[in-house]
Amino acid sequence: MTLTAKDEKFMRIAIEKAEKAMEKGNEPFGAILVKDDEIVSSCENQIFTKNDPTFHAELGLIKEFCSANGGDLSEYTMYTSCEPCCMCSGAMVWSKLGRVVYSLNHEELAEIAGFNIMIGSDEIFASSPFKPSVGKQVLSEESRVLYEDYFGNE
Amino acid sequence: MTLTAKDEKFMRIAIEKAEKAMEKGNEPFGAILVKDDEIVSSCENQIFTKNDPTFHAELGLIKEFCSANGGDLSEYTMYTSCEPCCMCSGAMVWSKLGRVVYSLNHEELAEIAGFNIMIGSDEIFASSPFKPSVGKQVLSEESRVLYEDYFGNE
Repeated sequence: MTLTAKDEKFMRIAIEKAEKAMEKGNEPFGAILVKDDEIVSSCENQIFTKNDPTFHAELGLIKEFCSANGGDLSEYTMYTSCEPCCMCSGAMVWSKLGRVVYSLNHEELAEIAGFNIMIGSDEIFASSPFKPSVGKQVLSEESRVLYEDYFGNE
Repeated sequence: MTLTAKDEKFMRIAIEKAEKAMEKGNEPFGAILVKDDEIVSSCENQIFTKNDPTFHAELGLIKEFCSANGGDLSEYTMYTSCEPCCMCSGAMVWSKLGRVVYSLNHEELAEIAGFNIMIGSDEIFASSPFKPSVGKQVLSEESRVLYEDYFGNE
């Protein structure tokens, strides 16, 4: 997939959301939803403040946006500060998300954090009836600093 | 994992929840959460009535129960009318669910429904830092009838 300067611009905003999440006591993950170059929704990780271990940025955004606007995201792009886990990748499939662009990939996150569910989003999408197009590792040198800072590895 | 008569009793209730979901215009999936032989929560699929394609019975239950009671389900068993998809399996991992018992498996569902995300819960759990113990195909001859009825294949 061709990546553009706009993708970097939107990813920077998703990373800012991740920083906000961390400032509020949650894990540093953030996501935004874009249609026709406009941000239509955003969400931060809220697993600790909501006592809900499934409140990842991506799933939270999809639930909230679809509940209000209908369940078909085929004309939308999601920017997320890290590759989606199998839960959030599944949510992208079920909502027919058109395109997802992520920053750090899940193997790098696992290396930094020390754990993850070791199934990548490519594997989920390859096995699925709907597949978003995928842009990878946009601004990953910037997001990596955030994850290293939070998870405390050097 | 050893299955007992209690597992059949609780599964029958999960299947009844699936039937209720269908009666309300949603897909026929239901789940209950049990601790010390008591049902502490239940949830039906609500993807159509809530306009939310991620509102599967298992994920809906986990979100609701954890938000109210805290995010660690390691002492709980979930009974679900069908093997969880990758999204709901991921939610089980992140909430550290202790045990999951399902009825129809996801390959049978795919055959009946004509589509699915073709990654089984075993594959997700095998790649995960937390793994529930798993009971399979409890009352699957009963749940199969429900799915054949709903998805309309013979």
